[in-house]
Amino acid sequence: MAAPPTIAVFDSGFGGLTVLRELLPLIPGARYLYLGDTARLPYGAKSQTTIARYALSSAAFLLAEGAQMLVVACNTASALALDELQAALPIPVIGVIEPGTQAAAASASRSNSASASVLVLATAATVTSKAYARSCAARGLHAFEKACPLLVPLVEEGWINHPVTAEVVRIYLTEALEVAPDARTLVLGCTHYPLLKPILERTLADLDHPMYIVDSASAAARAASSLVPRISTNEPVSCRFFATDSIEKFSRLGAKFLGRPVDPVTLVDLGE
Amino acid sequence: MAAPPTIAVFDSGFGGLTVLRELLPLIPGARYLYLGDTARLPYGAKSQTTIARYALSSAAFLLAEGAQMLVVACNTASALALDELQAALPIPVIGVIEPGTQAAAASASRSNSASASVLVLATAATVTSKAYARSCAARGLHAFEKACPLLVPLVEEGWINHPVTAEVVRIYLTEALEVAPDARTLVLGCTHYPLLKPILERTLADLDHPMYIVDSASAAARAASSLVPRISTNEPVSCRFFATDSIEKFSRLGAKFLGRPVDPVTLVDLGE
Repeated sequence: MAAPPTIAVFDSGFGGLTVLRELLPLIPGARYLYLGDTARLPYGAKSQTTIARYALSSAAFLLAEGAQMLVVACNTASALALDELQAALPIPVIGVIEPGTQAAAASASRSNSASASVLVLATAATVTSKAYARSCAARGLHAFEKACPLLVPLVEEGWINHPVTAEVVRIYLTEALEVAPDARTLVLGCTHYPLLKPILERTLADLDHPMYIVDSASAAARAASSLVPRISTNEPVSCRFFATDSIEKFSRLGAKFLGRPVDPVTLVDLGE
Repeated sequence: MAAPPTIAVFDSGFGGLTVLRELLPLIPGARYLYLGDTARLPYGAKSQTTIARYALSSAAFLLAEGAQMLVVACNTASALALDELQAALPIPVIGVIEPGTQAAAASASRSNSASASVLVLATAATVTSKAYARSCAARGLHAFEKACPLLVPLVEEGWINHPVTAEVVRIYLTEALEVAPDARTLVLGCTHYPLLKPILERTLADLDHPMYIVDSASAAARAASSLVPRISTNEPVSCRFFATDSIEKFSRLGAKFLGRPVDPVTLVDLGE
């Protein structure tokens, strides 16, 4: 029997724990490392050079901890640093954008819609990077990208099932569907958004505009699992968590993203 | 006639433009420099050592540009780096917290309330620093600090007069007044919040809990003007704007904070 692989998941914060959550049942026998680079977030406003440097130093830490595969569970780092990471690391590196786009393309080809357009909800930084638009265009899809700056703060406030969040989601979706009335596939282009999937589904039903929702977190986890041979094991899941700042917030909010306790979290210093 | 002084205003972003907006009519003859350290924001999650280093490098830049007075229009930097700045700089340095607390103390002493309690709305970082609580305690006031993490994103989304913002403000104020029912003075402990003053006033009226609102931006501007001799001049206001990243967003959103165009903005590199 092959030894269980060590899979590292990296994000600027705890949002990427939604990717780890998807990985756990797909590769139950693996050992997991999770690093949230909380001291240097948000990556969104930083330059490409700086983000690549942050991502490389984070990856070097995870490699030293024994990582045999790296999942970049951060849309900004996937958009701006994936090539550098893949060139620099001797292990497989998977981002969230390509798997998300691939799942969107599969959904669009299944649908009977004449239009090959998808709607991508993301942070302002990810929209500005145009990474989803480029990735979709390479598959013959037209991506309408909608920046939703309030959704991350609402999730971080814990207002997952809250009337205010429902109203904000209704406003964003209404604005987006005015521009992209033909879209039948919705891509969640931020690792915070899977927590809002129920409220998004309800709102789309209220707007009488049902869409197939592609969750980049889930798509990235499936892409990672396709690279790992299936292991049968009775060992309990082994997860080690690292953060570069704000351990308490990481552990407290992270549990909502992971759906289980995030504990203990080790503080690490990766410099500036 | 004295030469017009050069007054520098410093913030991690563009929120501090509300302080500059208050300064312009109070010291009309001055030359103004404004620096938003947008590449390194938010300061809130950083350590005290890092924030002091950021603030000192920002101040050194402004000193080299001719600053003769520095207004630290950033609550986090005022809370964590004011002593270092005052020790290091050969010019007067004014923060936002002391003037805000002083104005709150004046309001509390005017009110007929038996209680000397004030309610401070601020970001999570400022609340965690307990800077307002300490400053209020030194004046015999009890501060109830309420973290309002959604207000900055709502203002940055431009939802100043928006039903969602009204609902969020109602929720935050209701929660805060349950803990501090005697408070009759409300301190706006974040430079983004003056833009929400009308909505706060309406909500307090709806809640049947009128409060005197102390705006730290306005209080800091008055403290600065008290140090400058009155100049009569016919010269137009001279403002120079600097930012360390995201010039376009700085200029676009900054205009809402300043109430006039923020242009041109010069990009400066202060390192990391």
